[in-house]
Amino acid sequence: MNFRLLSRVLGIVCLLIGGSMSFSLPFAFPLLANRTHLPAAEALEREGIQGLVLSMAISLLVGTLLLVSGRGNRGKPLFRKEAMAVVGLSWVLATVLGALPYYLSGTEIAADQSITFIEAMFESQSGFSTTGATILTDLENPSSVPHCILFWRSWTHFLGGLGIVVLFVAILGQGSAGKAMVRAEMPGPSKEGSMPRMQHTALVFAGIYCGLNAILTVIYMLEGMTLFDGLCHAFGTMATGGFSTYNRSLGGFDSPLIEYTTILFMILAGTNFTLLYLTLAGGPRQLFQDVEFQTFIGIIAGLSGCILLFGMRAGDVGFESLGQGFRNGLFQVVSVMTTTGYGTADFDRWNNFARGSLLVLMFIGGCAGSTGGGMKVIRHVLFYKILLREIELSYRPRVVRLIRIGGNTADDPAMLRGIMVYFCLILGIFIASWMLLVTFEPSSTWGYSEESAALAEDSTLDEKLLDCASAVAATLNNIGPGLGVVGATQNYAGFSQGAKFLFVWLMLLGRVEVFSVLVLVFPTFWRRT
Amino acid sequence: MNFRLLSRVLGIVCLLIGGSMSFSLPFAFPLLANRTHLPAAEALEREGIQGLVLSMAISLLVGTLLLVSGRGNRGKPLFRKEAMAVVGLSWVLATVLGALPYYLSGTEIAADQSITFIEAMFESQSGFSTTGATILTDLENPSSVPHCILFWRSWTHFLGGLGIVVLFVAILGQGSAGKAMVRAEMPGPSKEGSMPRMQHTALVFAGIYCGLNAILTVIYMLEGMTLFDGLCHAFGTMATGGFSTYNRSLGGFDSPLIEYTTILFMILAGTNFTLLYLTLAGGPRQLFQDVEFQTFIGIIAGLSGCILLFGMRAGDVGFESLGQGFRNGLFQVVSVMTTTGYGTADFDRWNNFARGSLLVLMFIGGCAGSTGGGMKVIRHVLFYKILLREIELSYRPRVVRLIRIGGNTADDPAMLRGIMVYFCLILGIFIASWMLLVTFEPSSTWGYSEESAALAEDSTLDEKLLDCASAVAATLNNIGPGLGVVGATQNYAGFSQGAKFLFVWLMLLGRVEVFSVLVLVFPTFWRRT
Repeated sequence: MNFRLLSRVLGIVCLLIGGSMSFSLPFAFPLLANRTHLPAAEALEREGIQGLVLSMAISLLVGTLLLVSGRGNRGKPLFRKEAMAVVGLSWVLATVLGALPYYLSGTEIAADQSITFIEAMFESQSGFSTTGATILTDLENPSSVPHCILFWRSWTHFLGGLGIVVLFVAILGQGSAGKAMVRAEMPGPSKEGSMPRMQHTALVFAGIYCGLNAILTVIYMLEGMTLFDGLCHAFGTMATGGFSTYNRSLGGFDSPLIEYTTILFMILAGTNFTLLYLTLAGGPRQLFQDVEFQTFIGIIAGLSGCILLFGMRAGDVGFESLGQGFRNGLFQVVSVMTTTGYGTADFDRWNNFARGSLLVLMFIGGCAGSTGGGMKVIRHVLFYKILLREIELSYRPRVVRLIRIGGNTADDPAMLRGIMVYFCLILGIFIASWMLLVTFEPSSTWGYSEESAALAEDSTLDEKLLDCASAVAATLNNIGPGLGVVGATQNYAGFSQGAKFLFVWLMLLGRVEVFSVLVLVFPTFWRRT
Repeated sequence: MNFRLLSRVLGIVCLLIGGSMSFSLPFAFPLLANRTHLPAAEALEREGIQGLVLSMAISLLVGTLLLVSGRGNRGKPLFRKEAMAVVGLSWVLATVLGALPYYLSGTEIAADQSITFIEAMFESQSGFSTTGATILTDLENPSSVPHCILFWRSWTHFLGGLGIVVLFVAILGQGSAGKAMVRAEMPGPSKEGSMPRMQHTALVFAGIYCGLNAILTVIYMLEGMTLFDGLCHAFGTMATGGFSTYNRSLGGFDSPLIEYTTILFMILAGTNFTLLYLTLAGGPRQLFQDVEFQTFIGIIAGLSGCILLFGMRAGDVGFESLGQGFRNGLFQVVSVMTTTGYGTADFDRWNNFARGSLLVLMFIGGCAGSTGGGMKVIRHVLFYKILLREIELSYRPRVVRLIRIGGNTADDPAMLRGIMVYFCLILGIFIASWMLLVTFEPSSTWGYSEESAALAEDSTLDEKLLDCASAVAATLNNIGPGLGVVGATQNYAGFSQGAKFLFVWLMLLGRVEVFSVLVLVFPTFWRRT
C-alpha cells in the first residue's frame, strides 16, 4: 500500500468536496432560497452560512494537509489495492466532511433538539449514497433547518449520484488507475469495451447526468416550482435519492403533472446511461432491444398492475378511483424499484401483498450503469440464468450451454462467480445487521415503555422484527423509506444512536462496490507489499 | 429416460411402504396402544384398522402394477437421470400413499371436521420429511385420532429419518446406481472415500439409526413412558422430526429428566452418523476434532447462553429461575437447530432477540450425514470461508489460498460452486413462496374478518408478513413450529388448502437434495436420450 499516494488522492477529494460547499451559499439569500410555499427566514440562514463557511474551511484545511503529506508522488501508478482504498476512504471522508454543515449550523432534528454528530453523519451518508432516508422530522419549521443547509442536503445527492470518484476521474483522468477506481466505485457487473478511455466514459456519464438534471429543473419550474425547489427535487430524482424539501415529500405539491414528470425521469435515472448515450446516437431501437431495460420496464409494468388490482380490491388509501390508483401504484413501484424513495401515498397502510412486494422490490434496484442503487436488474437476470443452467447441469452434466444476454455470450466464469458471491454477501450483511438491530434496539423506539410492556402481559413487539428488516433493506439498498416505524410518513429519527451508526455503514455498503468497503477491515489489505 | 426401469424401482418402493404399514396394526390393540396418560378407545381403533388395511391393499396393488409394467429390465444400469427421477418420484409416491391411512380412517383435524386429502398429504409429508408440523389440533381427544394412526404418523418419521432410498439401497444394494440414488436423496456436500461400497454405508447408517432408536425407547420407558409413547417419541427425536402424541408436545410430560435425555439424543441425531461410527471404532477424539461438530456444538452453546441472558433480563415465560431458563433455552435451541421442533415452552412469547435468532437458526440445521434437516452446518462453514477468500481475492487477485476444513483441503471448484448455488436456490425458493403465501392467504387465517378489518381503519395485518415468512422457513427447513399463527402452541390447521399444498412441496424440497425435486418440472429432463 502506497500511503503517500493515497494521501494525495484523498486530499484532492477533500478539496473538491470543500469547494463544492460554496455552491450552497447563495441559497441562503431570499432571492434564491424561497421555496414554493415557504419564504426563507433570515435569522436562521445566518447560522446556516456560518456552518457552511466553517465546514468549507475545515475541508480545505484537511485537504491541503493530506496533499502536503502526500507530495512527491506525481506520476506513480495507482494499483488495484490503492484504487479500492481510495474509493472506500473517499466515501468515508465525504461522509464525515458532509456531516459538518449540519452539525456546525446547529440544525434541529425536532423542535429544540439539536443534531448529534452521528445523526449528521447519517444525513450526510444518506445524501451521498442517494438513499434519501432522513432524521429531520420537520423540514418546514422556519426555526429548524436553514434553506442553505437544505440545499447542501440535496447537493450531496447530486454529488453522490454522479459518484465522487467518477467526478474526480472526469476532471483529472488518471488513465488505467481511473478505470480501476471507477470500477471499484460503480456497483454492477461492468460492461467493458464500448468506450476506450475511462475519462471519456466518465465525461459522458457526467454529461448525460448534468443535462438531465438541467432539463428536469426547467420542467419543474414550468410546472410551478421555484428555482430552489426545482433544483432540489431534480437532484433528488436524477440521483434516485429521494430527499425532498417538504415534510410530505413530493406529495406536498399534490400535482399529478409533477408526479408523472417525476415517474418519467426516475425511469430515465434508473436506466443504463451508456444505453441512453447510444440511444441518443443511434435511435430508440438500441434501448428496447436491451434485455436489462426490457426486464426493468417489464417488472415495473407487471407489478404496478398487480398492486393496482389488489389495491382496488382491498380499497386501500390512494386507490379511491382507477386514475388515482394507477398514479399512486405506478409512482410507488417506480420510486422503490429505482431506489429513489419519494412518497406520494402512505404505502405502509396498503394491503399486505403491496407491502410485501415493495419490500422484495427493494432488493432489485435499477439498471447497471445508472444512478439507481440496489442489486441491479442485470444481476438478477444473470442469477436466474445461472440457476436454470445449474439445474440442467445436475442431470445433463456434459451439456455445454453458454449464458447469453440478448445475443451476446456473458460467460466469463469470474463474473458469474462474482454474481453468486455478491448475492450471498448481501444476504449475509442483511441478516447480520437485522439480528444486531433486533437485539440492541430498545423497545422504546416503537413507543413501548417498560410499564406498558408489563401491562400487555408479554414483552413481544410483533412489528419489531419486520420493521427492523425493512429498515435494513431500505438503507442497504439505498431506498429510504421502509415499513412501520420507518414507513412512508415516518422517518429514522426515533432510532437509537447506535442504530443510526449502523445505517451509515449499510448505506455506504449499498452505494459503492461492496468489496471496496469490506476490505478496509482486513489487516492484510493494509500491509505494504 | 428409461421409464420401464423407473417403474420397476418405484414398484419396489411402493411394496416397502405398503408392507411397513402392517407394523402400525398391532398398536390398535389396548395392550400396546395405551399412552402414558391415555388409554385407547376401542370403537375408534376399529376405524383406524380399516383405514390401515385399505391403504396397505392400495399400496401393494399399485406396487405390483408398477412392477409388472416395468418387467424385463433386470440388470439394466440406472444412470444419473434415472437415479434423480427415482428419488424425486419415490418421495412423491410416499407422500400420497402415506396420506391414505389418515384419509381412509376418517381422522378428524378438529372436533367434527374430517381431514381433506390435501391435509392428509400435509401430515404424511410432514412425517416423511421429518418436519413435524401438524394440522391435527387435538391429539388427546378419544374420538378424533386412533392410536394406530398416531403410530403410523410417528412411523413415517422413522422411515423419513432413515431415508426411503437409503432403506432401499441397504436392503437391495444396486451398486453404483445405489450410490447415485443415495447422493440424490441425502442433502449436504458428500464426504466420499471413507467407505468403499454404498450398501455398506447405507447399512452402517441404518444400523446406528436403529440402534439409537432402540436405546432411546428403552430409556424413555425407564423414565416412565409406555412402550407406545416411548417408540413414538424415540422416532420423533432420532429422526429430528418432532411429532408427539400429546397436544403439549414433549412439555406434556413435564419432566426435566425426559427433556435432558431428549436434548442429548437430539444432538446425537444432528451429528454426522459416519462420525459416530468412527467414534465407536476410534474413540471420542475423532468427534471433537471435527470442524463441523465443533461449530455445531459451539453455536448451540453460544446461542443458548445469549437466550438465557436476554430471557432472564426480559423476564420471559419459562425463565423464572436460572435452572428452568437454562433447561428451556437449551432445549429450544437444540430443538430448532437440529430441526426437530419439539416444544416445551412457548418460545413465541419470548423476547424479540430470542424469536429472531431462533428464526435465523432455522436456516442452519444439523450436520451433513445426520438425520437433521435444514441447510447443514458444513455448508455454512464452507460458505463463510468462500466469502472470506473472495474478499481477499478482490485485492490480491494472484494469491493462491486453498479452502481447508480441519487440515484437509476442500477445494473442488464444482463443490464450492454447488454451495453458492444451493444458498441462492434456497433463498429464491424462500422469497417466492413467501410472496405467494402473503398474496393468496386470506386474512381470516389470522382471525380477521372483512368487518373487523373495516373497523380497524386500515387493512394491514402486521403479523402476517412475519408469520408467513416463519411458516415458509419452518417447513422449507423441516423444523415444524414457527412464529405467530404457527408458533409453539399453535399448528398449521388454520391455513387454507392452497397454503397446505404449498407447504407439502416446501417440506419435500427441504428433505431431499433440492435438485432431485426441481428437475421433475423440466421437460428436457423427461426426454428419452
